[in-house]
Amino acid sequence: MTETNRVWRLRKRPVGIIGDDVLSFEHEAIPEPTDGQFSFRLNYLSLDPTNRIWMSDMDQYMPPVELGAAMRGIVCGTVVKSKNPNFAVGDVVSGLGTWADYQIAAPGMINKMGPPSGVSVGDAFGLFAVVGPTAYFGLLDLGDPKPGETVVVSAAAGAVGSIVGQIAKIKNCRAVGLAGSDAKCDWIVKELGFDAAINYKKDDVASALKRACPKGIDVYFDNVGGEILDACFKQMNLQGRIPTCGFISQYNATSEVPGPKNYPMILMQRLKVQGFIVLDYANRYPEAITALGGWLAQGKLKFKVDMQEGLETAVINLRKLYTGENQGKLMIHVA
Amino acid sequence: MTETNRVWRLRKRPVGIIGDDVLSFEHEAIPEPTDGQFSFRLNYLSLDPTNRIWMSDMDQYMPPVELGAAMRGIVCGTVVKSKNPNFAVGDVVSGLGTWADYQIAAPGMINKMGPPSGVSVGDAFGLFAVVGPTAYFGLLDLGDPKPGETVVVSAAAGAVGSIVGQIAKIKNCRAVGLAGSDAKCDWIVKELGFDAAINYKKDDVASALKRACPKGIDVYFDNVGGEILDACFKQMNLQGRIPTCGFISQYNATSEVPGPKNYPMILMQRLKVQGFIVLDYANRYPEAITALGGWLAQGKLKFKVDMQEGLETAVINLRKLYTGENQGKLMIHVA
Repeated sequence: MTETNRVWRLRKRPVGIIGDDVLSFEHEAIPEPTDGQFSFRLNYLSLDPTNRIWMSDMDQYMPPVELGAAMRGIVCGTVVKSKNPNFAVGDVVSGLGTWADYQIAAPGMINKMGPPSGVSVGDAFGLFAVVGPTAYFGLLDLGDPKPGETVVVSAAAGAVGSIVGQIAKIKNCRAVGLAGSDAKCDWIVKELGFDAAINYKKDDVASALKRACPKGIDVYFDNVGGEILDACFKQMNLQGRIPTCGFISQYNATSEVPGPKNYPMILMQRLKVQGFIVLDYANRYPEAITALGGWLAQGKLKFKVDMQEGLETAVINLRKLYTGENQGKLMIHVA
Repeated sequence: MTETNRVWRLRKRPVGIIGDDVLSFEHEAIPEPTDGQFSFRLNYLSLDPTNRIWMSDMDQYMPPVELGAAMRGIVCGTVVKSKNPNFAVGDVVSGLGTWADYQIAAPGMINKMGPPSGVSVGDAFGLFAVVGPTAYFGLLDLGDPKPGETVVVSAAAGAVGSIVGQIAKIKNCRAVGLAGSDAKCDWIVKELGFDAAINYKKDDVASALKRACPKGIDVYFDNVGGEILDACFKQMNLQGRIPTCGFISQYNATSEVPGPKNYPMILMQRLKVQGFIVLDYANRYPEAITALGGWLAQGKLKFKVDMQEGLETAVINLRKLYTGENQGKLMIHVA
């Protein structure tokens, strides 16, 4: 057991790729819960594209992490001390916490995890905490795909994108994914069952989309923004939907990023573009977990965890999300 | 009675402001209906921002007008010859026709107008054919404004915008309009009852919006795109809606128009941006006409027609829509 607590603290706002001086790795005293509180030990830390948003002071959907504060993260842990009657020592919990071995749960932000039923705690946390529900609600609630329609997803070998494409197949749609390497493209087609894949670093995206989507695009699940979004705008069908989940292509930008020049297609094709974060669906989580768990058990859904080791590796592993080195759900096993 | 038919024909795609050589004004034979057809004489021609789209070959929501063809327009006329049992000589009709004194109705595109009940045929055509239902469905169906919310509309002294703001007031919202002159701003506040107006040619739009919308923007009814859209994106409230009706700021562009750089606000504030054209609501027209007619009769809705004279003036009058010279619904009285 460590006697001290290791905590990643935010020291400055990143410019471009997250530099080594953006966070510092501190050794501190282990915090003690007071009345009504409980503390937990971090078992798994989820690394997500949105971490880069929280570090910055760009416009965002919750307040950025304050300078000097522990870095915010999606966490899974085990309760070690409790002065809260609803949480007992040994309970497995997950939610919005920090990058620290030991931490006091912020009120309402950390909840007990349901029994993982046949999958490991790490897999259950990786699939059910954020990624699966994000894909599920974004695609089905906002994208509303009909059988036979064409669903395109960017960052398709990523944690969310790989599930979006598989749910599209489960719903009898044509699934087309964009990814950044031939290996990733092979994986989503041969292993995950996508109908087609486009290597956006190598292919001309517009003409590749035309070939892969001969009947146009009905749903574009947008994880990246930028040029891929612009190319999709041009090939959207009438009344198409664009659930908007992320802009990973521009989080590391150091100068102003141009907007999508084909934005007027929203009018011309009467599109619906809608942003969401999974927290908007907090009260419908059980629906997503039941469906995803069922597909997983039936072998219809494959889920790949990219499990790294050690809290001290958080920053170097996080950077992989923005350079395309990672494949599947990136997580860190801590304890 | 003219013995010949005067017809505006499209000769070339416009570049920038519509030039004198884009359309030609021809004298031709009056067309004769064959079995199942009917012909009508043009009484009123509606001039609308979308006319510029139809002339161009930009991506658009219906096929552009072919070179050599009669210019497409929203028209009101009187049946003069009929070989169609559903239409009798003397019937007042309106719909999608052409810029010509006499014309054969395209199948399904021209319908009988209901009795105008207390307003002139010209006013009824101006308000009910396109403009009123566009404002009605765009604001209420897509914008879904709740009492106390703030509705911002661009081109607010224009035909659609002036009605959007008044419906917002009827629905107990705060109505803020952007227009291009102090006279227009005065008109929408003092005559139409908007809560505030911004002269976008004189004021700094971002800071003026902050002052006019102290509680942020819940609905931005977009008629213009461009920089005003970008400024609104930055001040949208959580779960805000952007019904997207037009991009008049860029129809005359001669070089590529940049996209809205604040597009990621769609994610950060979980916005819904949705394009529409009023034809999507064809089967719900009676609902809009009943509501608009009621408000008109009760004095809650004011409607201003900018009536010009003579089919030969169509092009010089149409240009006013893009230079901001016009105020209210621009129409031409033909016969």
